[in-house]
Amino acid sequence: MIIKRRCVKLNSSQTKQYMYRALELAKKGTGAVNPNPLVGAVLVKDNRIIGEGYHEKYGQLHAERNAIADCYRRGENPAGAELYVTLEPCCHYGKTPPCTEAIIENKIVKVYVGSNDPNPLVDGGGIAVLRAHGIEVETGILKQECDALNEIFFHYIRTKRPFVLMKYAMTMDGKIATVTGDSKWITGEAARRQVHEDRNRCAAIMAGVGTVIADNPMLNCRLPEGHSPVRIICDTSLRTPADSLVVTTAKEIPTILATCCTDKEKQKVFTDKGCKILEVSETYDKNGKKQLDLQDLCKQLGEQKIDSVLLEGGAALNGSALQAGIVSCVQTYIAPKIFGGQEAKSPVGGSGVKLACEAYEFEIKEIRRIGEDILIRSVPKKIQEGV
Amino acid sequence: MIIKRRCVKLNSSQTKQYMYRALELAKKGTGAVNPNPLVGAVLVKDNRIIGEGYHEKYGQLHAERNAIADCYRRGENPAGAELYVTLEPCCHYGKTPPCTEAIIENKIVKVYVGSNDPNPLVDGGGIAVLRAHGIEVETGILKQECDALNEIFFHYIRTKRPFVLMKYAMTMDGKIATVTGDSKWITGEAARRQVHEDRNRCAAIMAGVGTVIADNPMLNCRLPEGHSPVRIICDTSLRTPADSLVVTTAKEIPTILATCCTDKEKQKVFTDKGCKILEVSETYDKNGKKQLDLQDLCKQLGEQKIDSVLLEGGAALNGSALQAGIVSCVQTYIAPKIFGGQEAKSPVGGSGVKLACEAYEFEIKEIRRIGEDILIRSVPKKIQEGV
Repeated sequence: MIIKRRCVKLNSSQTKQYMYRALELAKKGTGAVNPNPLVGAVLVKDNRIIGEGYHEKYGQLHAERNAIADCYRRGENPAGAELYVTLEPCCHYGKTPPCTEAIIENKIVKVYVGSNDPNPLVDGGGIAVLRAHGIEVETGILKQECDALNEIFFHYIRTKRPFVLMKYAMTMDGKIATVTGDSKWITGEAARRQVHEDRNRCAAIMAGVGTVIADNPMLNCRLPEGHSPVRIICDTSLRTPADSLVVTTAKEIPTILATCCTDKEKQKVFTDKGCKILEVSETYDKNGKKQLDLQDLCKQLGEQKIDSVLLEGGAALNGSALQAGIVSCVQTYIAPKIFGGQEAKSPVGGSGVKLACEAYEFEIKEIRRIGEDILIRSVPKKIQEGV
Repeated sequence: MIIKRRCVKLNSSQTKQYMYRALELAKKGTGAVNPNPLVGAVLVKDNRIIGEGYHEKYGQLHAERNAIADCYRRGENPAGAELYVTLEPCCHYGKTPPCTEAIIENKIVKVYVGSNDPNPLVDGGGIAVLRAHGIEVETGILKQECDALNEIFFHYIRTKRPFVLMKYAMTMDGKIATVTGDSKWITGEAARRQVHEDRNRCAAIMAGVGTVIADNPMLNCRLPEGHSPVRIICDTSLRTPADSLVVTTAKEIPTILATCCTDKEKQKVFTDKGCKILEVSETYDKNGKKQLDLQDLCKQLGEQKIDSVLLEGGAALNGSALQAGIVSCVQTYIAPKIFGGQEAKSPVGGSGVKLACEAYEFEIKEIRRIGEDILIRSVPKKIQEGV
């Protein structure tokens, strides 16, 4: 027998308010849950929050179960409560049992959902199970905000490839360094902090061997609470210096060398220091130069559950990534400065398009001031296929 | 004897509303009044507009007198009315008698002023004259908007040099053309229309001889109601092709060739076709290459009453202009496209700065979407002196 019990009827602005709280909670999982989605949940009874939770760490409890546990910890009873959850509850056995079961068992009467879960194992199934048990479900609450929160998860679950976020910082005249190669610093502190937030939220960071040779970067996340992403170095011929920081610190922060070089002797130098070697198919650019097949690389990274890559390439790697069609999003930081000099490097190299009408086209999603700088977030209008 | 008669007391939002109308009227003079300011005026009695006017054309009546004339045309009497004017009324004899006289004679009782007039011949004098005649004056109404309207005039009256507006359009990766040199088109129609509006509002347009040789442009304004600016070609050694459009159409649209070449024979080829030659001092760039002294050029242009120059330079001229410190404002159009290719040209060439900390720095005044593109308006943080 299904017993229906209704809470105090809430208006739409109150509904949104609870979902905003759930979103806030969800974001606390940033950097810790990949390749799972970020999810937040709030339990409400008589227009009062009686439990809160979020998905805290990959492999651990989901947001719904954390909210229910929090409810009991507070000495409250979830029976008859309403649940706000940013993503459709799961209905399958994964690392944890289905959340739908917990909702049913705990006699929650209504569920407000933000995003639908495109995971083929869920995909509306969670909602259907709840309804079949007489639980009212209202969907699409702050859908846009909830969808935006999980752009990485949605991309990964649909394509099985990582979400590749290409990031570069340039001056107002399109330079990433001066004529002498100096690039410290182009953007201000606020923009550089944002980059570390992106390093935290992405499963991996990718750079070219040229950058490693030139700058010997750590490619880590310097936020106090942040997690450092796996470092992927695109290194066609295994030219990475064995004493570079990404190699010598590979036991603390995982480093993957993606290469076409199959010479086990050469590889051993790096595996001995804790690096992982990923052998990738080779391809050739327009000028006949051998390079990594970035599509193959992304396929392999996806298989290794790397759901997201922050591409901090130099001009050459950025050009190859666009040509290979692996870029999901571009973040262009623009500093209100001019370097001048035709020889100064610009952010995207490679062979480039011949005609203006052949340009890679983007849709602008967001333009905002970030400290003294500007950030433009855009997505490719269509995935450009490799040539 | 001074008779005071008061209108209906207006609140601040009504006051602003009339000043907005005056601003709207002022803008109608765009492109026709240089080197005079844009001014609009509205006469109000009993909270009702009884006369409107603006400065329509250089050498003709000022806004205040046009508003008074309009008032009589409507069969109204300006006596006892209040006047809204975007710029302090003039108190000196120029091409027309002082507006303060007309205000006094027509028994206007109160004047609302937007901007103060920094012209040394006025500079608060207009307001003082009115007050001395018992007319109430309220200043600073929509001051920011009124000041913005006359950035050109304010710059010119203070420095006696033209306001130089540097404009370029680039892709999101800082290219002004593809690797093959193709640049048609980078931005969309809305941005290109905006460029023609800037051509209309500026007294002159400036390009380098390189652009003339490569593209043979008309450099005119293609708006139906627009005025074409004087064309200034920076041509150190007088290499402009005699059959180029800017030369062959010089009798319809004035063309100035700014040059270091003093060879009268060579000059005659161009003067015969209606071009004007401006002999400019020479200077040398960091690499010892002879070039125009752009400071000297601007001084001479100022003397010729050219109050504003739209700089549509190629990369080389843009670099020289920044180095010479003549740039008043930069308008960067960014198309959401990527061309790629390290060889593709970027908007500012020249020798460029060596270190990132030596960059030309700007303050961003405005960022806005314009059609599918982005426009960033910025001003130099300090006028960079030539090196």
